[in-house]
Amino acid sequence: MRTSQYLLSTLKETPSDAEVISHQLMLRAGMIRRLASGLYTWLPSGLRVLNKVATIVREEMNRAGAIEMLMPVVQPAELWHETGRWDKFGPELLRIKDRNDRGFVLGPTHEEVITAVVRNEVSSYKQLPLNLYQVQTKFRDEVRPRFGVMRSREFIMKDAYSFHTTQESLAQTYEAMYQAYSRIFERMDLDFRAVLADTGAIGGSASHEFHVLAKSGEDDIAFSSVSDYAANIEMAEALAPKAQAGAPTQELQLVDTPDAKTINELVEQFGLDIKQTVKTLLVHASEGQASPLVALLVRGDHELNEIKAEKLAQVASPLVFASEAEIRQLVGAGPGSLGPVKLNVPVIADRSVAVMSDFAAGANVDDKHFFGINWGRDLAQPEVADLRNVQEGDASPCGQGVLQIKRGIEVGHIFQLGNNYSSKMNATVLNEQGKSTILEMGCYGIGVSRIVAAAIEQNHDERGIIWPAAIAPFQVAIIPMNMHKSQTVADAAEALYAELSAAGIEVLFDDRKERPGVMFADMELLGVPHHIIIGDRSLENGVVEYKTRREGEKSEVALTEIVAKITAAIK
Amino acid sequence: MRTSQYLLSTLKETPSDAEVISHQLMLRAGMIRRLASGLYTWLPSGLRVLNKVATIVREEMNRAGAIEMLMPVVQPAELWHETGRWDKFGPELLRIKDRNDRGFVLGPTHEEVITAVVRNEVSSYKQLPLNLYQVQTKFRDEVRPRFGVMRSREFIMKDAYSFHTTQESLAQTYEAMYQAYSRIFERMDLDFRAVLADTGAIGGSASHEFHVLAKSGEDDIAFSSVSDYAANIEMAEALAPKAQAGAPTQELQLVDTPDAKTINELVEQFGLDIKQTVKTLLVHASEGQASPLVALLVRGDHELNEIKAEKLAQVASPLVFASEAEIRQLVGAGPGSLGPVKLNVPVIADRSVAVMSDFAAGANVDDKHFFGINWGRDLAQPEVADLRNVQEGDASPCGQGVLQIKRGIEVGHIFQLGNNYSSKMNATVLNEQGKSTILEMGCYGIGVSRIVAAAIEQNHDERGIIWPAAIAPFQVAIIPMNMHKSQTVADAAEALYAELSAAGIEVLFDDRKERPGVMFADMELLGVPHHIIIGDRSLENGVVEYKTRREGEKSEVALTEIVAKITAAIK
Repeated sequence: MRTSQYLLSTLKETPSDAEVISHQLMLRAGMIRRLASGLYTWLPSGLRVLNKVATIVREEMNRAGAIEMLMPVVQPAELWHETGRWDKFGPELLRIKDRNDRGFVLGPTHEEVITAVVRNEVSSYKQLPLNLYQVQTKFRDEVRPRFGVMRSREFIMKDAYSFHTTQESLAQTYEAMYQAYSRIFERMDLDFRAVLADTGAIGGSASHEFHVLAKSGEDDIAFSSVSDYAANIEMAEALAPKAQAGAPTQELQLVDTPDAKTINELVEQFGLDIKQTVKTLLVHASEGQASPLVALLVRGDHELNEIKAEKLAQVASPLVFASEAEIRQLVGAGPGSLGPVKLNVPVIADRSVAVMSDFAAGANVDDKHFFGINWGRDLAQPEVADLRNVQEGDASPCGQGVLQIKRGIEVGHIFQLGNNYSSKMNATVLNEQGKSTILEMGCYGIGVSRIVAAAIEQNHDERGIIWPAAIAPFQVAIIPMNMHKSQTVADAAEALYAELSAAGIEVLFDDRKERPGVMFADMELLGVPHHIIIGDRSLENGVVEYKTRREGEKSEVALTEIVAKITAAIK
Repeated sequence: MRTSQYLLSTLKETPSDAEVISHQLMLRAGMIRRLASGLYTWLPSGLRVLNKVATIVREEMNRAGAIEMLMPVVQPAELWHETGRWDKFGPELLRIKDRNDRGFVLGPTHEEVITAVVRNEVSSYKQLPLNLYQVQTKFRDEVRPRFGVMRSREFIMKDAYSFHTTQESLAQTYEAMYQAYSRIFERMDLDFRAVLADTGAIGGSASHEFHVLAKSGEDDIAFSSVSDYAANIEMAEALAPKAQAGAPTQELQLVDTPDAKTINELVEQFGLDIKQTVKTLLVHASEGQASPLVALLVRGDHELNEIKAEKLAQVASPLVFASEAEIRQLVGAGPGSLGPVKLNVPVIADRSVAVMSDFAAGANVDDKHFFGINWGRDLAQPEVADLRNVQEGDASPCGQGVLQIKRGIEVGHIFQLGNNYSSKMNATVLNEQGKSTILEMGCYGIGVSRIVAAAIEQNHDERGIIWPAAIAPFQVAIIPMNMHKSQTVADAAEALYAELSAAGIEVLFDDRKERPGVMFADMELLGVPHHIIIGDRSLENGVVEYKTRREGEKSEVALTEIVAKITAAIK
């Protein structure tokens, strides 16, 4: 491609409304343009990357036995009534009326449509398992579209849906998708983690999110320093400390702490080690419990993990913290003075708390704390559970290495849905015994357009994008210096362009009448991996300058050898 | 692909709601399924064809120098206000509101969006010409969606838009698109015509429609029996007859014709040659004419072409036929007795009428006709124009051959828009003189999903679809007989499947436990071009049966030679 015949549209200035680096660089490199809030046009160089991502996704989906199809963007409201999501979904579900006043939605996802298709087309277990996917335009009317194509309203998804008669079959396809997703992100050279995710309200049985690690990510990902283990921070198990609680060395002391309403104040004012303090949190008990409240204990430097807490049988789900009035009524003290000693509600201690000795906590009397608390002596051994968020340096729950925590951008999600949709929509087949059976279902999404932005978040420098080879818009940039004045340079550049193109290499030939500095800057901004600079002086020596975008290494290569060198570098 | 792991979904019965053959066959072959009125899911085999069509379109667009990009489906209402199409478009333009009550449309076309993009990105003539295209989902809220994907509400279009500073440059790109479209349909082996089309209300300067010829088409296409000339019947010029009007041989006679209200009745009752009769049609004159009505004359066996008529300076546009009251008031007779003799309004005769002699027409007195009318003697020589629709057998206006008329399905349209949109949206660039100049614009559409249906309308028989090779969902069907009982057959089929697949050939391997008759019928219905039938008996002789879908020719081919034969047939 010749830049003179292309729509390059690079910008020198960083657009003021772009908050994250990928949004800034996609605008500056001329990859996208905003049409309206959350609506983006993909300019030619952007679409090249988008298509490369989609092609890799398709190849790995096909390799894993999934079959491509295509469902409409516009979906009838009736199907969303069938599953109840018409009411459950918020205004992100854009509801529209056609000319006959019939209700439709712009599809943010296609569980309803695919289940309707499969219940009509599949009648026997013999036709299963089946894993159907599409690469398609979706719409979510986000309350706050932002970060360019990272959280746009219209976007491109690859969504797959699998159907089974047994859980085992579902688990097999789930595993195949896990492997396919891993290959997809490996082929794109992205630093990613397959993250154990909460199955949450949808209530399926297993779920992984695939996150590209990047500082601008919106999720905290905990992962092992040595193994593949990774989990959303809400899901990562905090292992029990190997040590047992030490023997008491201090007496139990009731201390006046009038100015210590928080753990930090307590620690500062009394010179305590925060790891020797305990926070007590009162939450509503689940129905049928004798006490209306339950006390949860975590170490002073730890954070309660609400998702872990609400999964406890004794605790109400969703989690509700007790109000100050409820606390005062039941305990007789404010929240700043709560503690486990002489507490008249059931106590559940985090694993780290259970092995503490000589620790400090509130005394259930305003402005007083106990110091030197010891289990067994000052209060009964507690019920123990994993209640806290993991921290960097914690032992990894997989048993190997320690946990690191980084921010992640969610680019994929696989989910064992079970019969959630199929039962509501009565999607059944005859099983081997000839009996009607509700389908088991999995769903597997990849944010195709979001990957483009995530890849940039992970691969850029101050000069622009540094594309991984597999998704670069072009592999090679030919940058001739003053070719409009030097016929020698023009001839060499044209010949090289022809030769590389004939070898099937995607070349961007910068044949504009621009200063070399402008051309260098544009090709670096656009992130083309390999640059060939052609000038009169080096041609006199029979060489060109070769530079890699990522390493920035420059070398002189003989004109006769550059095609072979580039070809070898790309393969 | 193994049928056992595919979603084949063929139907034995013809769905009752499918009117045209392509709709019936696409449903029966499991290519599409209806989700709601005018909304279709593309099942896997349908999507394969759709993707092949899209790939050919992309390849030829790229070859012609067009650059792919992607614009949003959802477009802001503001842009449609800018061009005035918000008001002009009927309810086919689906207007929606987002969660903030802002107006949007589901794009039926993208002139507004692309013009907005280009006016922002392009500032100089140096960046032009530019031809940008996308392959994308469109929506038209059709009043009566029908014929499956032929006239659906959601559909896939390739739409291209070119931008220029001069008419000459626009004409060059237009010609390049004309050639590209021709190659696209040639590669698909479709019998098509590039048809001169009316530029109509949009008022551009040149336009061609590309029609696939098929009985179910909605348009009448006139084309030369020997040259490339083709035109929408409204646009085809009816050449003047070479003969001059003959000398009179009859006297002018006033004849009582009380029962002849129509030309056919006149011809029947008086034994006339219809080619010796003239129909007189009164229409409104254009503003500023002395007479409020104008008479248009066409031969009794010809049809008035309304588009040609309304282009005449004397005739009001759009064309309005005079009411009976208007006719009586001005002429003193009813419409069944109109004629050119002693008519008190201006007369314009079709070219064929101008060369008649001794002809019959109404006498402008109720229940009377004149017979033996002759120009010059009985009335003044008329003003002459091309006023009629062409007929089969007419000389082709290109000067070569005679006209044939067939029905066509419009699958493409190219259009020189000029500055229609660019002037309304103020899309300008600086020209070579540094002056701001309004862009010239062309647009070029192809109905990607419609092509699939049109190809079937042209390529089918009573057993199903007969795909042209370039867009077949699979190239080869392997049909093993009783492979679940015969290990020999299974081994041979598996080996052949592996070998053909390794050669890059798209094979559908029918490994279902089905009777051979079911398998034959499904593969014929689906239209796979090459069938290989493997059975125990033929294997004993070292052969397989080879059959082509189109010709239905069967032959025995040595197992050792079948791969070479298939490969050769496909290349």
